[in-house]
Amino acid sequence: MAGKLDKVMTRRDFLNQVGKVGGAVAVYGAMDSLGLLGNSMFASASSFNAPKKSELALANKVGKKVIILGAGIAGMASAYELSKAGYDCHILEARERTGGRNWTVRGGTEETEINGVKQTAKFDNGQYMNAGPARIPQHHVTIDYCRELGVELEAFTNINEAGYYFHENVGPLSNTKIRKREIKADTRGYVAELLTKAANQSALDENMTAQDIERLTAFLTRDGSLNSNKKYTGTSYRGYTELPGAGLKPGTIGQPYTFSQILESGMMNNFSSEYSFDQQMMMFQPVGGMDSIPKALEAKLPGKITFSAEVQEIRQTAEGVRIVYNFKGQVKEMTGDYCICTIPLSVLKKIPADFSPEMINAMKNINYATTGKIGIQFKSRFWETEDRILGGMTTTNMDINQIWYPSYGYLSQKGVVIGYYNFGQASVDIGNLSIADRQKHALAQGAKIHKQYLSEFENSFSVAWHKIKYNEGGWVSYSASDRQNYYPILNQPQGRIYLAGEHLSYLTAWMAGAFESARVAVSQIHERTLKESGTAAKVS
Amino acid sequence: MAGKLDKVMTRRDFLNQVGKVGGAVAVYGAMDSLGLLGNSMFASASSFNAPKKSELALANKVGKKVIILGAGIAGMASAYELSKAGYDCHILEARERTGGRNWTVRGGTEETEINGVKQTAKFDNGQYMNAGPARIPQHHVTIDYCRELGVELEAFTNINEAGYYFHENVGPLSNTKIRKREIKADTRGYVAELLTKAANQSALDENMTAQDIERLTAFLTRDGSLNSNKKYTGTSYRGYTELPGAGLKPGTIGQPYTFSQILESGMMNNFSSEYSFDQQMMMFQPVGGMDSIPKALEAKLPGKITFSAEVQEIRQTAEGVRIVYNFKGQVKEMTGDYCICTIPLSVLKKIPADFSPEMINAMKNINYATTGKIGIQFKSRFWETEDRILGGMTTTNMDINQIWYPSYGYLSQKGVVIGYYNFGQASVDIGNLSIADRQKHALAQGAKIHKQYLSEFENSFSVAWHKIKYNEGGWVSYSASDRQNYYPILNQPQGRIYLAGEHLSYLTAWMAGAFESARVAVSQIHERTLKESGTAAKVS
Repeated sequence: MAGKLDKVMTRRDFLNQVGKVGGAVAVYGAMDSLGLLGNSMFASASSFNAPKKSELALANKVGKKVIILGAGIAGMASAYELSKAGYDCHILEARERTGGRNWTVRGGTEETEINGVKQTAKFDNGQYMNAGPARIPQHHVTIDYCRELGVELEAFTNINEAGYYFHENVGPLSNTKIRKREIKADTRGYVAELLTKAANQSALDENMTAQDIERLTAFLTRDGSLNSNKKYTGTSYRGYTELPGAGLKPGTIGQPYTFSQILESGMMNNFSSEYSFDQQMMMFQPVGGMDSIPKALEAKLPGKITFSAEVQEIRQTAEGVRIVYNFKGQVKEMTGDYCICTIPLSVLKKIPADFSPEMINAMKNINYATTGKIGIQFKSRFWETEDRILGGMTTTNMDINQIWYPSYGYLSQKGVVIGYYNFGQASVDIGNLSIADRQKHALAQGAKIHKQYLSEFENSFSVAWHKIKYNEGGWVSYSASDRQNYYPILNQPQGRIYLAGEHLSYLTAWMAGAFESARVAVSQIHERTLKESGTAAKVS
Repeated sequence: MAGKLDKVMTRRDFLNQVGKVGGAVAVYGAMDSLGLLGNSMFASASSFNAPKKSELALANKVGKKVIILGAGIAGMASAYELSKAGYDCHILEARERTGGRNWTVRGGTEETEINGVKQTAKFDNGQYMNAGPARIPQHHVTIDYCRELGVELEAFTNINEAGYYFHENVGPLSNTKIRKREIKADTRGYVAELLTKAANQSALDENMTAQDIERLTAFLTRDGSLNSNKKYTGTSYRGYTELPGAGLKPGTIGQPYTFSQILESGMMNNFSSEYSFDQQMMMFQPVGGMDSIPKALEAKLPGKITFSAEVQEIRQTAEGVRIVYNFKGQVKEMTGDYCICTIPLSVLKKIPADFSPEMINAMKNINYATTGKIGIQFKSRFWETEDRILGGMTTTNMDINQIWYPSYGYLSQKGVVIGYYNFGQASVDIGNLSIADRQKHALAQGAKIHKQYLSEFENSFSVAWHKIKYNEGGWVSYSASDRQNYYPILNQPQGRIYLAGEHLSYLTAWMAGAFESARVAVSQIHERTLKESGTAAKVS
């Protein structure tokens, strides 16, 4: 029956997976490497008996060195997990910060795009934008890492019925900001009315029993808020034109739009984006900025990260790997037993590497999504005080796509709004504007919805991910045929080199993809190490 | 057109309302009394010129004394607003705390029910339950007071797709916890499939143009996640039986339930509760407990509240009011120019008062809703670690009605779950059990959904509002005829006695009703004072 619990790759599942491929010893070793022994939260659910501590020490003495390329989520999660098991890990990171695409922009943040244009964020103290990942679904393993690392979470307001739809050039509802709740209630009402009518005309009989139809009609009447004639004529679900109050103020319900108006507007086609498994409420964000996650990982890896290390060559040697990198103008190299490479394919494909022709061909053929964001600081939260919108989004059919209202600092004076978060051609077009013109465009588009945009504006910071050095794109974008033809190749190690990152997962664009892929790479390396060192034989 | 902004009774609206009934002077006076002069947030939108400060002082010198009965939201909001305008306010409060039904239970909280049974909460430090109001919609004036009073807000997780439906005795889906997202996705799918079929059979033609039908069909295909044959056969919207992961794990989508199973279960009839204007996301709660609001109001009223003052008589005098009360065994009285009485009708109707026969009859005939809540502290957050539910609710057809997972302290060790929040007969039946039996019942019912209920249980605190002294009910419950026959009578002052509270509003059961009614009472008293003192003539 489909009602079983959704399964997430919890740490327990991870162990079970390792158990399947590597036998009991791999499980024990991986278990220790993940710090799960003695973890009461999971221990009770373990399906095997933990070995004595003395046996596990064997697994910890292999002492292999793993060079990890990139101090983003995948790289640091790999180092974090391997370090627990006694591996000698070192991360080479091109930037002077950790996090990769998990990047929180605050006042003073500087970025020079690949064409040399530099920005410095002027946000006030306490204000920030998450330029990369910005929300976490409940079922992602990212939540488990936040728990383990002590990263505090708060709700991310992914869905707010008070937000607006604003569509241009779509008939009578064009250029009008309309509360999401209005379009939703009206659409549900008309759908319910139409289906109820069809049911009463026996148009559904071949599918359903009389009892089912009766239950369906009762449900539709409630769900669509139909009147006693089974007609939709409006409902308080859509909100009021005058709110109910105290004394003799019962409130006034607004007139619904016609279904024809709504269908022409296309606004109802926005609903399903909220149904997506990874976009449903509740969603979460770390308190204070998404980079709380990489900062927490970084704190677990003292002395294990070399910053400003630009990888120039990735080589295989007889029994290991050799990485050539540029450290502030000096060419250096590092050798190790394994490499976990988390560099995005958009960048990796340009780095000389001892990869198979199939791998090189695969990387060449895989595309990265373009995406852009602008954070705009306003001197007052007019969306809260005037529009009564606390968090959430306004959805448009313009090139800015969405406006995000901040999910933190409610009721305070200032706030940073995400003025656009767009994809595809719109993100390329806006991203290719000058910094000043991006801002100007975001303000002009937003001012169609919020007149206060111009008077309350203070400053902005924009990110065009296709122009960000060391990323050159938002996230991997696999077609169905890419998944078939190229993805399996990326999942095969190149000698002792393993790839990790969101691009090595079915959770592309999510931090969870990076975490999960790190866990897979770590498991595979650990299993191989145990096998090759003969530790498996000793313990089993 | 219905797309206009929803209007809330902001402070500006409040001024406009006063302006209508009391003329310009009343507006100026009320404006000052509300502290709005010089408030830049609202000043720019004012449609009149503010008078000079020296003129306003006249309004502040009336010095009338207002006795307020009850230090709940309505009482303290009344005192807060009147005090700003220079009124001499004093609150008589029967309890030793403020807040009334806005009551946050923490470790050490004591309560003796009207039958003499005493409870002391044993929650750990940092754990709490909001026994009364627990969530705030964005459009309520409560939000404005939080802003003005500096009460910090965080999201209240009213809707979480990861929560369960659990229905007993409803056919094949009985006694099975099913994720809300599954029932929602399946229902949307089947509704879309049926309506698409009806549309293709021309069953809708008389209502819609061919273009509308084409747009409707395209919408339904997307909304219901129909396949290329316009059939619903499942969707990732409902979640996965095996989650997508890294490497070669694309995830497995579960089989949908049949529509007949769902219709028999009745679970789809729960959807519309989430559409209610006051229940839609986003919703909010004060950080640290709902009583942050009364505490913030109380801090604005130093020395103006007498606790342990049980009102015994409410009398009218020639030019004012006289209140007789019992203060720790001593009978005392207080006289004043006006009285604002916020005592719930369920209690007020038993207090001797100089009220008209119509008023006495009205109070006698108005009912109060019964409701109960239990907070259960568990030693671990199994709902987060095992069920992957961070906040939100599970909805049942059992007498416990709902289970609420806490909207604070995510990822921490312990948590307080609301084990039931019920109404009507169920709340009477469970509320009439002994404290121990309420707990036993809540645990037994909850354990049907969460097996960890019994092993992880630590302690509980239950509230049966019909047995709480000074309340004797949850909130006023007006029938349509009550609104017609009795409600207008309550809105007329009895001499110089004005009623306030959620029962004097169309926002019953909400704190906003208490706030709004306080503003109405304050406006009416202020207008009358200005008229009677002749101040109006002087200034105008």
